[in-house]
Amino acid sequence: MAKSENILFGDRLDAAAREKKSVAVVGLDPTMALLPPDLAKKAKSSGDGLVEAFAEFAVGIIGSVGDLVPAVKPNIAFYEAHGLSGLAIYKPLCLAAANHGLLVIGDVKRGDIGSTAEAYAHGLLDGQYTDFNTLELDMNPSEMRMRIGSLLGPHDALTLNAYLGSDSVLPFIERGAPRGQGFFMLVKTSNPSSAELQDLKLEGGGTVAEHVAGMVRSWGAGHIGGSGLSAVGAVVGATHPTELARYRELMPEAPFLVPGYGAQGGSADDVVSAFREDGSGAIVNASRSILGAWKEENNPSDWRGAARRAVEAMNADLRGALERAGRWGF
Amino acid sequence: MAKSENILFGDRLDAAAREKKSVAVVGLDPTMALLPPDLAKKAKSSGDGLVEAFAEFAVGIIGSVGDLVPAVKPNIAFYEAHGLSGLAIYKPLCLAAANHGLLVIGDVKRGDIGSTAEAYAHGLLDGQYTDFNTLELDMNPSEMRMRIGSLLGPHDALTLNAYLGSDSVLPFIERGAPRGQGFFMLVKTSNPSSAELQDLKLEGGGTVAEHVAGMVRSWGAGHIGGSGLSAVGAVVGATHPTELARYRELMPEAPFLVPGYGAQGGSADDVVSAFREDGSGAIVNASRSILGAWKEENNPSDWRGAARRAVEAMNADLRGALERAGRWGF
Repeated sequence: MAKSENILFGDRLDAAAREKKSVAVVGLDPTMALLPPDLAKKAKSSGDGLVEAFAEFAVGIIGSVGDLVPAVKPNIAFYEAHGLSGLAIYKPLCLAAANHGLLVIGDVKRGDIGSTAEAYAHGLLDGQYTDFNTLELDMNPSEMRMRIGSLLGPHDALTLNAYLGSDSVLPFIERGAPRGQGFFMLVKTSNPSSAELQDLKLEGGGTVAEHVAGMVRSWGAGHIGGSGLSAVGAVVGATHPTELARYRELMPEAPFLVPGYGAQGGSADDVVSAFREDGSGAIVNASRSILGAWKEENNPSDWRGAARRAVEAMNADLRGALERAGRWGF
Repeated sequence: MAKSENILFGDRLDAAAREKKSVAVVGLDPTMALLPPDLAKKAKSSGDGLVEAFAEFAVGIIGSVGDLVPAVKPNIAFYEAHGLSGLAIYKPLCLAAANHGLLVIGDVKRGDIGSTAEAYAHGLLDGQYTDFNTLELDMNPSEMRMRIGSLLGPHDALTLNAYLGSDSVLPFIERGAPRGQGFFMLVKTSNPSSAELQDLKLEGGGTVAEHVAGMVRSWGAGHIGGSGLSAVGAVVGATHPTELARYRELMPEAPFLVPGYGAQGGSADDVVSAFREDGSGAIVNASRSILGAWKEENNPSDWRGAARRAVEAMNADLRGALERAGRWGF
């Protein structure tokens, strides 16, 4: 986490988007299938070769696209998938991103209650900030641990699951919001089965997801910055474009994190209604289409360049759609 | 995970409860406040003293109560709270429990989609089984890693959050159920704010949690063992006793994991209706009341004995209530 000097997260996100003139966020979700051949070879070379290749890949992507976007979003599942070895590269990557001037959104989707929520919040929101450039990724693990601390945090923002209600999110918000950290609550996700529960109609009108949207608005009410954006935001998928406008209406102050663009099928025109009238208030995530851009270009030796060109194209695509809708504000 | 020889989880859980004549599960959730004074002193002694004290405490509890209960349930949040150092003791503790003949239920409450769910499932369900007795907790981390593997799994069962629908749980069930692993879906939790979302009434009748109960039943339909219990179960809190019977009706084949007994306020009579007519089908969790039993006894030097006596009392309490209700089946 870059030092926030007690600026609320909504304002930090807005400032970062204006500075970069971008509303894109890159998902740092490395998998074997996304590794270019030279790194795939390294991944197979030794026991920890895979996570070392992941680290080199992610640091390369951060270096290549870091000046083009306001934020990155590592999904911790892709690190936890490789256990302690995978988690050991997670924090250094977050630090690398922070040192490149990026906000780091930990896509952790945690949700538990009371003292358990406190425990998660401590591990993910607290922690030690260190200059990544003083680290080497092949450094002895215990030496690195001493330099960066053991905690997985701090993050600039987290995704959270609110199925358990206020008990499961307030410990995060109360701890993090005053010091500039933000929260994206799962409201309406972009996966095919999201309708099974989220779209159920309620007796009193509206859907389950719309009810969660109301909860998000109330949780965020005390944490709205000068930009008009709150520290409490929402995940609202791009694959349901007709609904985005309705969610924007229900949560006028919430920053939206919009997954589903690119590989998952959402277009730039689909996501326009996630933004506020002035063009602020939403960031759009892409992961596979950026990390795997070298495949699309059939250009494995220049995977860094391919990722950069893919982000430039995504920025232009989103800007174009927002301009057509009269919502480009930067 | 003890070797399951392809017995489905419902049958494994039922057999373990019958063997131990117990329906209790002990939550292995160490916190500073629960440590007895000698371990609290150790916890403050050095950088990793805290997690070393946690490990010694948890191993002591496992050794003291392991013959009295069918399962333990570590909530990974209490380990993740201490970052990599905390997570480094998580797997050895799971192995210690497995080697004491206990089923290990990882209370992870994960919920993510598609390839991300696959990533979590790999990290938490796959992994290496090793005799804990060949390990020393103060072993060099890299040597221990070589012996037990890097993954946090395998677990005998996991808790999962189904807000994202089938996409988020089927990758777990399809991977784990055929090899004997089980899943407890969050249906109705025991925390005060659980009603905010879970008790909302649906247009077509029933509540959100009752609808999730129907999803749980359908996910579990293909994984029912000879005991009549499925590999797909549900978390249903003890603090809502009048509702338990209704959930049992909606999910007749689901093993129930019932939190909220003891420190959270639920009594043995409250949980009786979580069980099936023959007394099978539910396990009741307690954490703080067992780990902190030495406080209740004002007996800090015999924290192992206090935990054992608390589990014996809990077993007797649950058995008494089930006998009164004509549901004690063992």
